[in-house]
Amino acid sequence: MAECRLLCELALLIAVTASAARALPLHSCPATKPSMLNVHLVPHTHDDVGWLKTVDQYFYGGRNYIQHAGVQYILDSVVAELQKDPARRFIYVETAFFFRWWSQQSRSTRNIVTQLVQEGCLEFVNGGWCMSDEASTHYSSVIDQMTLGLRFLNDTFGECGRPRVAWHIDPFGHAREHASIFAQMGYDGFFFGRLDYQDKDRRMKTKEMEMVWRASASLNPPTADLFTGVLPNGYNPPPGFCWDQSCSDDPVQDDPALEDYNVDDLVSRFISISKAQAALYKTNHIVMTMGSDFQYENANPWYKNMDKLIHYVNAQQANGSQVNVLYSTPSCYLQELNLANQTWPLKSDDFFPYADGPHDFWTGYFTSRPALKRYERLSNSLLQTCNQLEVLGGPKSRSGPFGKGDSDTMKRAMAVAQHHDAVSGTEKQHVADDYAKRLAEGWAHCQVPYVRPVGSRGHRVRPVGSRGHRFSMNVYNPLARPVSWSVHLPVNGTSYNVTDSSGNVVDSQVIQSQYNASVGNAESSQTSGAYIFRPNSSTPCAVSKNSNTVLCVCQNSVVQEVRQQFSPWVSQVVRLYEGSRELELEWTVGPVPVEDGFGKEVITRFDSNISSAGYFYSDSNGREVLERRKDYRPTWDLTQTEPIAGNYYPINSRAFIKDGKAQLTVVTERSQGVSSIYNGSLEIMLHRRLLRDDYRGVGEPLSEPGEFGNGLVVRGRLLLTLTPPETAADSHRPLAQGLVLQPLLSFQEGAPKPTSKLEFSALQAALPPAVHLLTLSQWDSESVLLRLEHQYESGESKAFSQPVTLNLQVHTHTHSAVTALLPCCLLYRLSLLCFDCSFFS
Amino acid sequence: MAECRLLCELALLIAVTASAARALPLHSCPATKPSMLNVHLVPHTHDDVGWLKTVDQYFYGGRNYIQHAGVQYILDSVVAELQKDPARRFIYVETAFFFRWWSQQSRSTRNIVTQLVQEGCLEFVNGGWCMSDEASTHYSSVIDQMTLGLRFLNDTFGECGRPRVAWHIDPFGHAREHASIFAQMGYDGFFFGRLDYQDKDRRMKTKEMEMVWRASASLNPPTADLFTGVLPNGYNPPPGFCWDQSCSDDPVQDDPALEDYNVDDLVSRFISISKAQAALYKTNHIVMTMGSDFQYENANPWYKNMDKLIHYVNAQQANGSQVNVLYSTPSCYLQELNLANQTWPLKSDDFFPYADGPHDFWTGYFTSRPALKRYERLSNSLLQTCNQLEVLGGPKSRSGPFGKGDSDTMKRAMAVAQHHDAVSGTEKQHVADDYAKRLAEGWAHCQVPYVRPVGSRGHRVRPVGSRGHRFSMNVYNPLARPVSWSVHLPVNGTSYNVTDSSGNVVDSQVIQSQYNASVGNAESSQTSGAYIFRPNSSTPCAVSKNSNTVLCVCQNSVVQEVRQQFSPWVSQVVRLYEGSRELELEWTVGPVPVEDGFGKEVITRFDSNISSAGYFYSDSNGREVLERRKDYRPTWDLTQTEPIAGNYYPINSRAFIKDGKAQLTVVTERSQGVSSIYNGSLEIMLHRRLLRDDYRGVGEPLSEPGEFGNGLVVRGRLLLTLTPPETAADSHRPLAQGLVLQPLLSFQEGAPKPTSKLEFSALQAALPPAVHLLTLSQWDSESVLLRLEHQYESGESKAFSQPVTLNLQVHTHTHSAVTALLPCCLLYRLSLLCFDCSFFS
Repeated sequence: MAECRLLCELALLIAVTASAARALPLHSCPATKPSMLNVHLVPHTHDDVGWLKTVDQYFYGGRNYIQHAGVQYILDSVVAELQKDPARRFIYVETAFFFRWWSQQSRSTRNIVTQLVQEGCLEFVNGGWCMSDEASTHYSSVIDQMTLGLRFLNDTFGECGRPRVAWHIDPFGHAREHASIFAQMGYDGFFFGRLDYQDKDRRMKTKEMEMVWRASASLNPPTADLFTGVLPNGYNPPPGFCWDQSCSDDPVQDDPALEDYNVDDLVSRFISISKAQAALYKTNHIVMTMGSDFQYENANPWYKNMDKLIHYVNAQQANGSQVNVLYSTPSCYLQELNLANQTWPLKSDDFFPYADGPHDFWTGYFTSRPALKRYERLSNSLLQTCNQLEVLGGPKSRSGPFGKGDSDTMKRAMAVAQHHDAVSGTEKQHVADDYAKRLAEGWAHCQVPYVRPVGSRGHRVRPVGSRGHRFSMNVYNPLARPVSWSVHLPVNGTSYNVTDSSGNVVDSQVIQSQYNASVGNAESSQTSGAYIFRPNSSTPCAVSKNSNTVLCVCQNSVVQEVRQQFSPWVSQVVRLYEGSRELELEWTVGPVPVEDGFGKEVITRFDSNISSAGYFYSDSNGREVLERRKDYRPTWDLTQTEPIAGNYYPINSRAFIKDGKAQLTVVTERSQGVSSIYNGSLEIMLHRRLLRDDYRGVGEPLSEPGEFGNGLVVRGRLLLTLTPPETAADSHRPLAQGLVLQPLLSFQEGAPKPTSKLEFSALQAALPPAVHLLTLSQWDSESVLLRLEHQYESGESKAFSQPVTLNLQVHTHTHSAVTALLPCCLLYRLSLLCFDCSFFS
Repeated sequence: MAECRLLCELALLIAVTASAARALPLHSCPATKPSMLNVHLVPHTHDDVGWLKTVDQYFYGGRNYIQHAGVQYILDSVVAELQKDPARRFIYVETAFFFRWWSQQSRSTRNIVTQLVQEGCLEFVNGGWCMSDEASTHYSSVIDQMTLGLRFLNDTFGECGRPRVAWHIDPFGHAREHASIFAQMGYDGFFFGRLDYQDKDRRMKTKEMEMVWRASASLNPPTADLFTGVLPNGYNPPPGFCWDQSCSDDPVQDDPALEDYNVDDLVSRFISISKAQAALYKTNHIVMTMGSDFQYENANPWYKNMDKLIHYVNAQQANGSQVNVLYSTPSCYLQELNLANQTWPLKSDDFFPYADGPHDFWTGYFTSRPALKRYERLSNSLLQTCNQLEVLGGPKSRSGPFGKGDSDTMKRAMAVAQHHDAVSGTEKQHVADDYAKRLAEGWAHCQVPYVRPVGSRGHRVRPVGSRGHRFSMNVYNPLARPVSWSVHLPVNGTSYNVTDSSGNVVDSQVIQSQYNASVGNAESSQTSGAYIFRPNSSTPCAVSKNSNTVLCVCQNSVVQEVRQQFSPWVSQVVRLYEGSRELELEWTVGPVPVEDGFGKEVITRFDSNISSAGYFYSDSNGREVLERRKDYRPTWDLTQTEPIAGNYYPINSRAFIKDGKAQLTVVTERSQGVSSIYNGSLEIMLHRRLLRDDYRGVGEPLSEPGEFGNGLVVRGRLLLTLTPPETAADSHRPLAQGLVLQPLLSFQEGAPKPTSKLEFSALQAALPPAVHLLTLSQWDSESVLLRLEHQYESGESKAFSQPVTLNLQVHTHTHSAVTALLPCCLLYRLSLLCFDCSFFS
C-alpha cells in the first residue's frame, strides 16, 4: 500500500505526458513464470447500463423475470470474495452502477473497497459512466460520459482508481474515433470482443489478434496510437469453465470420496485449451475472460472453483507441465506484453461493419429507434447550453421560479444514453422509454438555469401561439460564433408581427398546412431486428412508382418550399432558405405499415452524376471522416455475402461522395446508417419497423408503437450541399456543429420587462472559424471546465486546416472560464486537436 | 455463549425425561412484542438428498443444466451472511449435506460455525441424514438414518447442535409412526407443509392448523404426543417476498433517487399478508418460511432484503402499526406458542393420502419403482446383519480377504435411500440408479464382515451352482430367535445332495423351469406419474379374460406349487411350504407393455367373503396398524373425487381386512400401495409404468428401462394368512419381521474346512416372542448400540400384547452388547415400546 501511494503521487506529477504514464510499472501485478505459458484469468462482469431492463432495474435486480441481473449483489459479493485471498482480482467497468452502489455503502465498506483498489485487487477498467456505443454516439457526448465516470473514480480513489485500460468487450463494431479518444485520454491499451468473423479468422491465423491502432489521420503519431487486443472468446470464459450461477458447467469436484470426481479431466481440458489459444497469440501470455453478462452476483462459486483450478493446474508443473495459471487483470496482462518487447501490426481503418456470420451484419442498429437517436442528440445540445448558462449565471442559476435544478440530472441521463444498448436502439421498448424519460427529466431540471439568466420574468411558459396573446421568445446560441438559424413555430393565427430585441421587424411568414411528398426512394425489406439489417432483396422497392408528385411549391421572402407527399406514411419538404447554400430536406416517415406481413426499412437515396466509383465517406463519431469502399475492407480480402447490409456504415454527422469536380455532402442531425450502392448515389436509412426479433437477445421485434400504438411517426432533417471537394469542409463543418449545438428556444407570455437585458453574449468576440467550443461547464465552485478543439481535419480545408492560436482573454468577458482548463488536462489528458495544454499555463 | 454452554450442560443432565427437555427455555431466541402480531421469519433451504440430481451432484452443484442447485455454496454463503448480523438466523436440516460440507472446511471456518451454532444463529432442525419419506420407509431404517445424522451433530456440536424441532416440510403425506418416533426421540414439535387440500381448508377456517398429534394407540400419553404445526404456505415465502436468486420478485428498492422505489407498496402488502395469515392461527405469533428448494446459494439477496423489510415494516410501528417482524427459528416460534398457554386440538389418525387437488392424489408413489423399494428393504436386512457381525466379530471383522470394509458405507447408503425422493420412487431414473449403486457399494463393503466371522476360508465366492462343484452355503439369521426359511437356489444340475452343518441330509428338491401364471386381477390405467396415481377408469382391466389358466401344479416333500401364467408379462407362483400356514404368492410383472399408448398400473386383488364393509387396515412405517375406511377420513367430511386413487394408502409390511370371524392378512416384503375398493377385497399395486410426467417436478415419465431397455421386470412376494382376527397378529408380526430381517446367504467353493466352526449363535437363548432385536451395532470402540422393542401393539394379541421383562444376561453370551444402551437413550431418547431406559441402568 505504501508503494501504491507513492505511485499515485508520481503519476500525478508526470501524467501530463501520456507516454510517460503508459510506461509506469504496476506494482500490484501478480508474478508470472517467464519460461512457461502464463494464463491470465481475468474475473469480470459485463453490466449493461440498460438493455432488457432499465439501468435501475439492473442495479437493484428488479424484474428478474425478464432477465436475472442485480448489480448491487455483484458488487456486494465480489468485495466479500476479494477479501478472502489477496491473490484474487476483479475488474469493474461501469461507473453508473458503481456510483449507485457506492452511495449506499457504509463507511467501513468504503474503507475496505478503497483498500482493495489501492492494493490492485479491485481494478477499474474503462471507467466511464457506461460502455458507450461506438456507431451511434457523438464524440462530444462520449467525452462527457467518460468525464462523469472518471471524475467520480478520481474524486473517490485518486490515482489508484484510474483505469489504465479501455475495455469495450460488447459494442457491435468499433469506431476509430473511440480509439483516438482513448489514446488521447492516456489509456495504455484497448480490448474488445466483437469484430467481423472473417477479420477474426484471418487475425487468428496470422497472429494479428493484437495490434497498434493508429486512430487519427490528423494527429501526429503516437498521439492517437493505442495498443488494441482482440479477446480470444468474445468476453466469455472458455467452454466448460463458466462457474457463474447463470452457467451449468460442472464445478471442480475434487473429493474422491464423492461421485463425479473430475479434477483430472478438467485439468487436462484446461491445459489443452490454453495451448490452443496460445497458438493464436504472439507471446507466452494469454488472457481468459472469466465472466460474462451480469455475472458474479454470487462470486463464491466463481472464485472457489478458480482457486481450485489454479491449484490443480499449477500442481501439474511438478509433472513437467509448462502451463502457469494466475489471477490477473487486463493492465497486468498488458504490462507483460510490453515487457515482451514485441512488434505489433498497425491498423488505421476501423472495425465497421460488424458481422458475426455471412448473413448477420449488425448494421440495422445504425438507424434503429430514430426518434430516440434524435432526442439524445437534441438533449446534448440542451446539456451544453445548460452547462454554459450555469457558468455564466453562477450559483443563482441553480434555483429559479420552478424550483431548484441543475445540469446534473441531464449529465447522468446523457451518460447512460451513450450506452451500447441505449442510443444504439437495441434495447427493449420499455427501456427505450426509460432513457427518454431520463432525458425528459434532464430537460425539466435544466429549465431552471436556462430560463433565468436570459431575462425570464419567472412566469410559467404557456403554449406557443396561444390565440390573441403576445409572447416573447428567447434564443440561446451555444456555439462560440454567430449562427443563422431559421425558426419554425406552430401557430394558429394567420398574421403576426415579429420584432427583434431592438424592436425592429423581423422578416417572417405564416405558411398554411407544416403536408408533404415522398422521399425520392425507399427500401422495404424483411430484416432480422434491432441489431441486424438484412433486406430480402438487393433492389429497394419504391414507395410509389409515381414518386415525384409535387403537391405544392411555396415561395416567399424567407424560404422556398417544395412539399412532396407520396403515400400516407412518407412525405418530404424540400427547403432553400434565403441566403443559404444548403438544401434542407425535412422527411416524415410513419407509421410504417406492416399489414402485408413484412417489416420495412426506409431509406432515402440521392442519385447524382458524381463518379464515385464505389467510394464514399462517413464520419467517425462526428469527428474525423473515414473512406469507405463498396464490397471492400482495407484489412482483409472480403468475401461479400450481403450486397446491401454488408455495405452499410454508421453516419453520425455527415457522409459524402465525390469525384475530382464535385462533392455531395449530407449533414444529419442524428445517427443513421449510410451506404453507396450505386455509382453516384448515396443512401441513408431513415426509419425501420420490424416484425421479428433477430435472436441477439432483445427478444422483441423492433416495432415502436408511437403515440397511438399503430407505429411511430418520425420526422427529421438532412442538409445537402453540393460543392467543389476542396471547399466542402468549409461548409459541412460549421453546418454539422450548428446542428449538434442548435439554438435553444424558450418562451414567455407577454412582452419582455422593459428592464430586462434583451441581448447578451458571453463572448467578447467570436472564436476563429477553426476553433470549436466543445465544453464550457462548471467543474466545482472554484473552477470551470473549458474544452476547445480544432474542428478541421488535416488537409480537408485550405482555409481552415491550419494550426490556430488564440488569446482567450480577447474572446471572453471574464477570466473565470479559463481557470479550470489545466485541471481538465491533468485529470483526463484530453489532448485537443491543435491546442496543447501548456498553451494555457 | 456462556449462557448457551450452561444450557447445554443442564440439558445433558435432565434430558433423560423428554418432557423436561421440552420445557427448557431457549436463551438465544429473539425478543418479541407481546402486544403485537409477531411475524417470525424463518430463513431456510430445502435440500433434497437426491431428486433430479444425485446427492453428490446436489452437493457440488454438478449438472446444473438439470436443476440449478449446489449445497456447498449454500452453506458457504449462509455462514458468511450470518456473521454480518447477530440478529440473523438460519436453520439447516439435512446432515447428509452438512457432513459433506463440514469435512471440507478449514479449522477456522469450523470454529466460526461452532460459534454460530452455540449462539443460536445457525440452528439444526430435524437433523437426520435426510428428510425421510413417510409412506415407503420402514421404521427401523428411519431410526437408523436419524441416528446417523443426530450422532454427527452431537459429536460435532454437543447439546447445542441438538435439533428440537422435527421438520418434514416436503414429504407427500405424513405417517403417524413418524410422529411417534419424533415424540419418543424428544423433539419439541413437528412442522410440515403438505396435507390434503380439503383438510387444510377446514383447518384454516377452524384455526386448527396447529394441534397435538397423539401418535400411538399403544403408548400411554404423552409418550407419543407431539405438537404439530401446518405451515401456512407449504414451505415457501408469501407471494412477492422471495428474494432468492431463483426467484423473480422485486427486491426492496429503497433509494428514492432511483426508478421503481417500492418500499411503501411492499410494506403495506406485507402487513396485509401478515394480518390475513394471523387470522388462520390461534396466537399473536405467526411463522413465515423464507426459503425453498436449494435456496440461499447466494444468501446475500435474501438477508439484504429481509433486513430492509424488517426495518421498514417495524418502522411503521411509530405510525401505529401492530405488526412486529423478526428473524426467528421454528423452535423459537414454538417457545412462544408454549408461553401462550393455548389448548390445541387432538389428532390421532394420520395424514394419508395426500391430495393437492380434486384429481391429484399422491398415491402412485406408494408403489413407484418397486425394484428399488425391494432393494432398499433387502439392504436394510444386510445392514442389520453387517452391524451384528461387526459386534460379534470385533475389530478383526473390518478387514478380510477382499480388503478392508465395514458397515459405514451401507449405513450412509441406507440413510440417503430413506429420503423422500429416494425409496419413494419419485426421483429421476439416473438418480434411482445412483441410490442403487450406493446400496451395491454398501453390499460390497459389508462382504468383509459377513464373510469372515461365519467361518469363511477366504476364497473368492464363485457363481452358485457351478456344474460339478461342491459348494457350501452360510446362512445368517439376524433375528433374535430361530426362524424357518425356505431357500431357493438357481442351479443347473438335476440332482443335489444337501447336508446341514452336522452332515445330516436336508430335505431338498430341484424344480425344473423357477414359469408362472397370471395375477388374479390387474388394473391398467393412465396415470399422472411418479407421485400421482390417477386411473382413467374405476374398473380395473383384467390382464386376461381367461385369467386363471393353470399351467402347472407341482407337489413334493418341501412345497406345493401352482404356477400361473396369464400373459407374457404377468405370471405368478402360489406356494404352500410344508409345515407353514401362510400362502406365498410370488408375482412377476413386466416389461409392462405400453405400445397401446397407455401407461399401466398393475394391481393384485384378493377377493373374499369377509364382510369388511369398507374398512381395511394398513401399517404405518411397518410398526403400528391404522384403520382405513373407503371414501372416509376421520378428521373431516370428505368429498371423494377419485374413487380409486383417493382410497389408496401406503403399506410397508402388512394390510388386512376382517370381520368378526376371519382376517385376511397380506404381509409384504417392500412398500406398496393398498386399498379395498369392494367389500371383502384387498388390492395391492405391484408395478407401474407410465408415459407422462405428472408435473410435480420430476420431468420424466416413470418408465424404468430395465436390463434390456424395454421395460423393467419386477418379481416379488406376498404372504397371505387367513386366521381368526384374535390370533392374526401372532402370525403376521413374526412373518413381517422375518421378511424385514431375512436370513443372509453366502457361498463358498468346496466343503467347509474341518476346523471351521460350522454353527454359531450370539444368543444363549431366544428372546421372548414379544421382544424384537431392532439394532445391535458397534457404537464406538468401547460400546455397542442395542435396541430392543416390544413388537406387539396394545390389545392385538392375547398371547403377546403384554408387558415383558427380560434379563439380558440370560440371553447373551457376553456383556459387551449391553454396555452402550444407556448412552443411546441419553443421546436420542428412543423410548421403546415396552422398555424404559431406566430398566437397564
